[in-house]
Amino acid sequence: MVFKIALLGLGTVGTGTAKILLDTAGRNPLLQGIEIAKVGVRSLDKPREVQLPLELMTTDLEEIVTNPEIDIVVELLGGLEPARSLMLKAIAQGKHIVTANKAVISRYGDEIFAAAEEAGVYVMLEAAVGGGIPVIQPLKQALGVNRIHSITGIVNGTTNYILTRMQREGGEFADILADAQRLGYAEADPTADVDGLDAADKIAILASIAFAGRIKLSDVHCEGIRQVSAADIVYAEKLGFVIKLLAVAKRDPMATGDNPKSETIQLRVHPTLVAKTHPLASINDVYNGIVVEGEPIGQVIFSGPGAGSGPTASAVVSDILNIAAVLKTDLEAKQLHPLLSCAHQHYCNVAPISDLVTRFYARFLSQDHPGVIGHLGTSFGKHHVSLESVVQIGFQGNLAEIVVVTHDVREGNFREALDEIRTLEAVDSIPSILRVL
Amino acid sequence: MVFKIALLGLGTVGTGTAKILLDTAGRNPLLQGIEIAKVGVRSLDKPREVQLPLELMTTDLEEIVTNPEIDIVVELLGGLEPARSLMLKAIAQGKHIVTANKAVISRYGDEIFAAAEEAGVYVMLEAAVGGGIPVIQPLKQALGVNRIHSITGIVNGTTNYILTRMQREGGEFADILADAQRLGYAEADPTADVDGLDAADKIAILASIAFAGRIKLSDVHCEGIRQVSAADIVYAEKLGFVIKLLAVAKRDPMATGDNPKSETIQLRVHPTLVAKTHPLASINDVYNGIVVEGEPIGQVIFSGPGAGSGPTASAVVSDILNIAAVLKTDLEAKQLHPLLSCAHQHYCNVAPISDLVTRFYARFLSQDHPGVIGHLGTSFGKHHVSLESVVQIGFQGNLAEIVVVTHDVREGNFREALDEIRTLEAVDSIPSILRVL
Repeated sequence: MVFKIALLGLGTVGTGTAKILLDTAGRNPLLQGIEIAKVGVRSLDKPREVQLPLELMTTDLEEIVTNPEIDIVVELLGGLEPARSLMLKAIAQGKHIVTANKAVISRYGDEIFAAAEEAGVYVMLEAAVGGGIPVIQPLKQALGVNRIHSITGIVNGTTNYILTRMQREGGEFADILADAQRLGYAEADPTADVDGLDAADKIAILASIAFAGRIKLSDVHCEGIRQVSAADIVYAEKLGFVIKLLAVAKRDPMATGDNPKSETIQLRVHPTLVAKTHPLASINDVYNGIVVEGEPIGQVIFSGPGAGSGPTASAVVSDILNIAAVLKTDLEAKQLHPLLSCAHQHYCNVAPISDLVTRFYARFLSQDHPGVIGHLGTSFGKHHVSLESVVQIGFQGNLAEIVVVTHDVREGNFREALDEIRTLEAVDSIPSILRVL
Repeated sequence: MVFKIALLGLGTVGTGTAKILLDTAGRNPLLQGIEIAKVGVRSLDKPREVQLPLELMTTDLEEIVTNPEIDIVVELLGGLEPARSLMLKAIAQGKHIVTANKAVISRYGDEIFAAAEEAGVYVMLEAAVGGGIPVIQPLKQALGVNRIHSITGIVNGTTNYILTRMQREGGEFADILADAQRLGYAEADPTADVDGLDAADKIAILASIAFAGRIKLSDVHCEGIRQVSAADIVYAEKLGFVIKLLAVAKRDPMATGDNPKSETIQLRVHPTLVAKTHPLASINDVYNGIVVEGEPIGQVIFSGPGAGSGPTASAVVSDILNIAAVLKTDLEAKQLHPLLSCAHQHYCNVAPISDLVTRFYARFLSQDHPGVIGHLGTSFGKHHVSLESVVQIGFQGNLAEIVVVTHDVREGNFREALDEIRTLEAVDSIPSILRVL
């Protein structure tokens, strides 16, 4: 039995996908029954790294998703449109979907999975999170029997590369971003990466699987790394931390596990002080790492290349393989494989960020008055913010630089204390506010 | 549809398995369709941590594996017999198997999988390697499209616990083993763990999946950690290494990938110097970590709890879930799901350890003669062993202690050089010979 697939897009990941499928020796033998039948591209003239017969190539993407010969559409266009519409059309035609498109899935997942459920087709997305690292399949299958408590991940390679270089070289964000752009590690428009939007897409997807509910992307609290300065990295280092952009999905510890619909979860992306001894502290450069905690598993960690042609293609092709394997078992199956399909109905309740309880790191610039630390302490105390340490680190010009680390506090209380502190005459500014894992 | 399972054994893992299946809220809803119908135990009187209706319990294990009501037999007895015979009987009766029994699978896997193939049933073994860490399923599925180059793992928690404590406390193996036995981290008879036999079982299983061939357990070169001394740990530390018991399965770099049956693989378990910067160097205590390298994935790392009731039960129940999911999709399927079944026919060619090319660390005790280092150098040179460093570290009594680190050498050449060195009058003994990753 031969399964015919169509690739939408022949960029980095599309090329990697084609390479695997055209060179199957030494890989899973099922791949020999998978044939690239169509490749949709924007331009037929562009030189390609991979040799495909010209008659497979077309710029008519609509034709591909309605072509009755195609069993599986592999969407690797990226971006919202036409990717979303093409996926929906393919689904309506009874085709299975494999996609690496976290932006579409995190925004239109409800629409797409509802359509897939109705059409009786699979929508697979291992490549959307963590590049080649197996994380979606393990969450659905090997870890599926656990009550997941939290997922904490470094899921964006570009920001991890920038933060790692800032850590190693002591450089400022803007300079290293510019260099990363020059080297191809960051896009010309770096917004999606450095402002945390890409990580937000990914944690929304992981949370939806882990907590078996739909997620509104707007519920993810999202801060990027533009505010992280070389000074913060130095101070964090002295305190025993590195700074990482973490994406966190966490079941509210106050909620009971009995009715998942009544509980709330936290969903957030922000630069975070991570203790050097934590497993995520050593995930450097473009690598990704994802920590899953649950009951009874405890803590498991997945790490590896979070992007790139080969690794992401590995995830794409493994999804194709999974669909092919299920179809091969029985093409006339009465229902979808329940671990590979997705039929969430309810939306998860996401707690507002002000309800978060966490430790904070904050850096203040103030006049060099003897009473400033006292004033800070008084304001924090009034708002029930308990401090672990207050240290005057040095000077910037004629301003004193003070670093505060709190114990666990409710974020709302901490923000109220900061609002009051900003009104103090001696306080010039608060250049950094970071959470501590 | 309700699937009836029988547990063979209600020890640590059996208890954890029952706990998950009896408390399904907040877990994958498919679990609600899985019923514990029988539990086979040695003694009905033993107090149990988990409450099961008395009428489910029986000491008649034979009855269980032939009972027509049972769909899936979950073998958690451990040991070779009666586990093997019971599994074979259950298979002959058309029952699916879930097992955590690495000893049986690594020795009788060919017999068991051949029987399962004939009977059209699944034999699932996620729990046999890495406790709760998903590694078997990812190798079969998410990583299945890769050409796997190597698997390098810390897969035995007891030895990792002992080595970690030796590293932290500077203690000797025998003392820390005794303490680990007292604390329940090592068995009264520690042979299977400390001599590397358990790790050998596990790497044989992983290699069989990664390289899609059968493995003869006797082909695994196996050294345990009894020879590792506090002195070695101190010297390794000075050189930038920690000592870990690694299990390695590696495709011979000289072989071509075109015909997997013609290539050779390395299969070995031995204490190894691991650079402190390597991801496995920070896997400590009873934790396990497994590095998978392949093309095009690059390197992915899985780590987490390698043993324990809850984590191992997580793996067991995920296998039950996987079988139930496939059966639910279509009970009348004409063939087994190809990614969950196993039909290897050929045996992998395993290279003799003398063909291994690796770096070595060796510690010599010699008379304190001025020419000893020169003699060592001459003998090594004669056998084409190129040295990276030779350092006289200190004295033990009136004997000088010399540590040698080689460049990559063929193991056979290195051993010949050592044979010659042992005949040198000035050389007293060679207390440690360790490989370097």
